[in-house]
Amino acid sequence: MMDAIPTLDDMLAARDRIRPHVHVTPVLTSRMLDELTGAQLFFKCENLQKAGAFKARGASNAVFGLSDAQAARGVATHSSGNHGTCLSYAAGRRGIPCTVVMPRTAPQAKKDAVRGYGARVVECEPSTSSREAVFAQVVAETGAEFVHPYNDPRVIAGQATCSAEMLEQIPDLDAVIAPIGGGGMVSGTCLTLSALAPATRIYAAEPEQADDAARSFRAGHIIADDAPVTVADGLKVPLKDMTWHFVRSHVTDILTASEDEIVAAMQLIWKRLKIVAEPSSAVPLATILKNRDVFAGQRIGVIITGGNVDLDRLPWTNGDAQ
Amino acid sequence: MMDAIPTLDDMLAARDRIRPHVHVTPVLTSRMLDELTGAQLFFKCENLQKAGAFKARGASNAVFGLSDAQAARGVATHSSGNHGTCLSYAAGRRGIPCTVVMPRTAPQAKKDAVRGYGARVVECEPSTSSREAVFAQVVAETGAEFVHPYNDPRVIAGQATCSAEMLEQIPDLDAVIAPIGGGGMVSGTCLTLSALAPATRIYAAEPEQADDAARSFRAGHIIADDAPVTVADGLKVPLKDMTWHFVRSHVTDILTASEDEIVAAMQLIWKRLKIVAEPSSAVPLATILKNRDVFAGQRIGVIITGGNVDLDRLPWTNGDAQ
Repeated sequence: MMDAIPTLDDMLAARDRIRPHVHVTPVLTSRMLDELTGAQLFFKCENLQKAGAFKARGASNAVFGLSDAQAARGVATHSSGNHGTCLSYAAGRRGIPCTVVMPRTAPQAKKDAVRGYGARVVECEPSTSSREAVFAQVVAETGAEFVHPYNDPRVIAGQATCSAEMLEQIPDLDAVIAPIGGGGMVSGTCLTLSALAPATRIYAAEPEQADDAARSFRAGHIIADDAPVTVADGLKVPLKDMTWHFVRSHVTDILTASEDEIVAAMQLIWKRLKIVAEPSSAVPLATILKNRDVFAGQRIGVIITGGNVDLDRLPWTNGDAQ
Repeated sequence: MMDAIPTLDDMLAARDRIRPHVHVTPVLTSRMLDELTGAQLFFKCENLQKAGAFKARGASNAVFGLSDAQAARGVATHSSGNHGTCLSYAAGRRGIPCTVVMPRTAPQAKKDAVRGYGARVVECEPSTSSREAVFAQVVAETGAEFVHPYNDPRVIAGQATCSAEMLEQIPDLDAVIAPIGGGGMVSGTCLTLSALAPATRIYAAEPEQADDAARSFRAGHIIADDAPVTVADGLKVPLKDMTWHFVRSHVTDILTASEDEIVAAMQLIWKRLKIVAEPSSAVPLATILKNRDVFAGQRIGVIITGGNVDLDRLPWTNGDAQ
């Protein structure tokens, strides 16, 4: 059975709860990108969020919503991406234990980031069975609360605060577009916009090479990919029941872009907006550029989801950096 | 004789004049950078300014302050850096002619940026004598108004709007620090803070390898370097009479940093603030890191001056990018 679907009240409660712990992120515009796309684009810069990603919102909502008793036992998750870093950030703010299970093959920078916030990294083998076994052991030993990266009502309610903030910053958006992996940000966007701005259409953007959400959307049921390969490494995970509920109910379309299109859009963002955005964050602009007719002449909110990039290995270089 | 020194009234007039043409840029903070420096740092992100640099302020003030008759004859400058791009931007906004004289050896990207805003590039040989001869010819032929990159009261009054904006965003700053090349931004900062926040100290930051302003400051008169070499290529130009007036009158100290320290600080800014900032913009943080005792425990405004970087040639890579 699915946990309770989060509601607008949950988003409003999340907003109050996380206010001291997250930034109100700026919205940037670029005349050049508007000219290129024929649309008016408003980039909501969650790469400038605490810990470098929108996931600080959901993680903070989960951590600061815990009872004192549960908080004393801490939180745990499995993630080699932004959720692990952001949960560590939020736990550090509350001063409670946090354990992140990561494959031993995960980049050293990711492990360092988690430890930098005072959390514990427990390594597993790079397989689902090892991860599940190690994670079960962590929870059994610590009594930690599991905070799922996206299929969790507390996390979705937290991510939903992003669109609420954007609506106050930029009224009258015709559409909002966000990248989709597991669907946490898109679900939060659906939660907020369906209640507060029901005329604003919601698009999701996905790499062609990890297009399980697009295929799920067309098939009418969840399809999970087996180990997709894409430069947009935050978008490899599949939809789950709760995020599928929001996607199915409120998303207008899921658009895809090739690897080359994603990297080109990422360069445009760095060059024109002067921000460090990770490949996943470039997928929406890539799809806007190739679907000009869908967006031209309209006011579009584009969610830049994160900025955690290895600066020594940018996807447009040979990887020969020092 | 020196032109009239710009005053607070000139800054206030500039603020009204340029408001429709420039962004109110955000101020970013980073807990990690605060921990590293022991100070509370507030980064004023002029890299997110129109045309990617604070120079859009001064250029817009000069261009929109012209009489219609003069505007019809256009503006001209010599610059292979941000001033040329920003003057082109401002002239494009007003719809008037703009000519930028650049050495034929200037990067193609710089020429393209100027042309992208609709301005004309006239090439000269890479020598002062050629530049002056070609520029004189441009002015003779067009009657264009010369807008100097920094030694111009209209330009300084425009740059001065940056600190006025920052004072409203972040009150009670103990000090503000900005990079110094010709001294336009530092002069504008002096203009505003000496009138509106006289208790706020003003520091300038300069590459060791182009430390003419620091040596001028200590000597008590302008010293110009002959063709300094530094990664912070926006900071190679010397002080002139008007900027020297402000520096001499209001700056507390001029601090310097080595090339390695500048590149390391630039990486920290990209990694922690998630913004694309040019090497010149990293010099202040580099000097804060090496002069911890000067800044620790204080609230410091740090001006990130620009974000116009060749993303294929980052200074921490081998230059092997594709």
